[in-house]
Amino acid sequence: MRTQVGIIGAGPAGLMLSHLLHLQGIESVIIESRSREEIEGTIRAGVLEQGTVDLMNATGIGERMMREGHFHRGIELRFNRKGHRINMHELTGGKNVTVYAQHEVIKDLIAARLQARGEILFNVGDVSLHDLDSSAPKIRFRKDKNGELQEIHCDFIAGCDGFHGPCRPAIPKTVRTEYQKIYPFGWLGILTEAPPSAPELVYANHERGFALLSTRSPEIQRLYIQVDPADDIANWSDDRIWTELHARLATEDDWKLIEGPIIQKGIIAMRSFVCDPMQYGRLFLAGDAAHIVPPTGAKGLNLAVADVQILARALDSFYTSGKTELLERYSATCLRRVWKAERFSWYMTSMLHRHHDHTPFEHRIQLAELDYVTSSQAASTSLAENYVGLPME
Amino acid sequence: MRTQVGIIGAGPAGLMLSHLLHLQGIESVIIESRSREEIEGTIRAGVLEQGTVDLMNATGIGERMMREGHFHRGIELRFNRKGHRINMHELTGGKNVTVYAQHEVIKDLIAARLQARGEILFNVGDVSLHDLDSSAPKIRFRKDKNGELQEIHCDFIAGCDGFHGPCRPAIPKTVRTEYQKIYPFGWLGILTEAPPSAPELVYANHERGFALLSTRSPEIQRLYIQVDPADDIANWSDDRIWTELHARLATEDDWKLIEGPIIQKGIIAMRSFVCDPMQYGRLFLAGDAAHIVPPTGAKGLNLAVADVQILARALDSFYTSGKTELLERYSATCLRRVWKAERFSWYMTSMLHRHHDHTPFEHRIQLAELDYVTSSQAASTSLAENYVGLPME
Repeated sequence: MRTQVGIIGAGPAGLMLSHLLHLQGIESVIIESRSREEIEGTIRAGVLEQGTVDLMNATGIGERMMREGHFHRGIELRFNRKGHRINMHELTGGKNVTVYAQHEVIKDLIAARLQARGEILFNVGDVSLHDLDSSAPKIRFRKDKNGELQEIHCDFIAGCDGFHGPCRPAIPKTVRTEYQKIYPFGWLGILTEAPPSAPELVYANHERGFALLSTRSPEIQRLYIQVDPADDIANWSDDRIWTELHARLATEDDWKLIEGPIIQKGIIAMRSFVCDPMQYGRLFLAGDAAHIVPPTGAKGLNLAVADVQILARALDSFYTSGKTELLERYSATCLRRVWKAERFSWYMTSMLHRHHDHTPFEHRIQLAELDYVTSSQAASTSLAENYVGLPME
Repeated sequence: MRTQVGIIGAGPAGLMLSHLLHLQGIESVIIESRSREEIEGTIRAGVLEQGTVDLMNATGIGERMMREGHFHRGIELRFNRKGHRINMHELTGGKNVTVYAQHEVIKDLIAARLQARGEILFNVGDVSLHDLDSSAPKIRFRKDKNGELQEIHCDFIAGCDGFHGPCRPAIPKTVRTEYQKIYPFGWLGILTEAPPSAPELVYANHERGFALLSTRSPEIQRLYIQVDPADDIANWSDDRIWTELHARLATEDDWKLIEGPIIQKGIIAMRSFVCDPMQYGRLFLAGDAAHIVPPTGAKGLNLAVADVQILARALDSFYTSGKTELLERYSATCLRRVWKAERFSWYMTSMLHRHHDHTPFEHRIQLAELDYVTSSQAASTSLAENYVGLPME
């Protein structure tokens, strides 16, 4: 098999890249180890930056999002039992926070790719990368997990295979540096059948730990609490979860958290990670394959979309004019933006969680940060511009 | 002896308080353990917030400052061998950074107090505080260090005696909480007879450690480098100091650091400290007696001046109307502002110094912070509004 760009991974990065390349008249093939059902059915939160929303609309895949998504003009930071609204819309000159789940974005992208006769091979196995430092790299894999070995001959390979995929390890260890932070807390997340308790997302800093209230739909809410990342979900009865949520989200007025049946629960760990460079020979990493952020800043999906926009533009420049400048600058261009998003995600995570290793001084500095960021127009604007997404360069 | 407000300490806090009270028709007496010569001769840096400058001018003690001070519209942050100017003036709607040394402020205040026949007793010894929880507190001390014991009977005592003075310990340990952070770095500071190498202050973050370039006068410059706080100044020859300064301040263009004879050098440690509450009975702490900041944010003197403005206003309200509300709120009003300044000083210190315990990830986050703060208007404005001084509330 032969294509111009071989894409490994059908997550938001791989699908969006294939979609953008198609609009530029560049061929691609996507291979993916999971099934279509699995990808579309894995429920993942999604807070879209204004730039992600604009891109989806500009490229013809935004219709359902505009119909079913939730457009918030702000978020609430809650601490010392008081809520403080950050009016994103006003502070950023009209940008919004769009709540539209990641798996819904994926469904829309898959539908668009298949409608345009794009090729996505699901359920592949034994993926390996070859001849990356030549101008004719190859992807080898087995069809249907255990089927026959196949090869895709391509001009470029896009590594969109997530944190645990084979692409990043295909870059020799001697040429890449990995930066990492493992946080000493995890998020216990639930889905509950209940109406929204608040019109916008609420991020709460509480003595007992962080809590996050978000909405999935008028009927389903998504809530999180900070827990020990090594804790077992079996230790958390529904009653215990609600007790924590009530305590951490409580306000001094008569606001009420609305309960409902818990239909899903689980604990995730939190990590920051960056691989530098994001390119080796003809292999270009994008999204989680190159970097991970803790979910507090809602940046993961948006960074993946930003990476592939930069990559699609560079590939377009190459195929139209033969110029390689943008491809050569790909890693540096992405990483400057990535590190700013890593900074913001680390900042939001640090500011909102309870650090059990903090000294009393450090705890007071955290409260002063919250007091400052909610009382200064400049600081609120800084938070807002990061949350809705820094401009592309 | 009897007065309305007994003030312990003739630093910026005590002198400014006495000056403000005098203008409100409230009597005070200042006692100070050092001599006038020592206080006026101890060379201390001084970067004045716009509010401090405005207060000095409004209360008739700003004339020499306006003549001899240096008014800067910005500062420079230097990293990766490039300078990035923060235009304070533009970002804050016209506020400036005023460089005017602390001992010059002290000279002006002492002159004003003595001219108005204010009483300042220098060289006192054995200071102790009594009956703080009554309405008739007393200060006991020895005149001229070893002279006879004297007493000042007063309505209120202002503890302006710095970090090591007797006032804070006079608050029972059971009613106060102390918050503290000791930083793992110190500043080696020099005075040199040389013309300015740059028109504004330069804060440099460098692999070898922080450096700061500031001007004292057209003939004298003040420079600092980050060192181990336990280091001995004897280990630092003039040559070694200049080598470090050249390395840390170097830029990729042809900027040059101008050398001169070093006329003073020393190493200071860095600490953050807050005492909560800042009041006990009829004793009110102000300035370094209640809180310490590392010098990176240039906040120490300004916080002291802000404290005594709040205290003078509260005492005025008491003496004019008998109302105690403002006195009762003194500690809470000051501490909200103090914690914001502590946050900013900690932030500047963290962002600009080399942390030898940082992981590579944390180091990259620090560089991302510098990149972000110098490239975002909102983040630059946030830094600027703190540097020139947050508004009084």
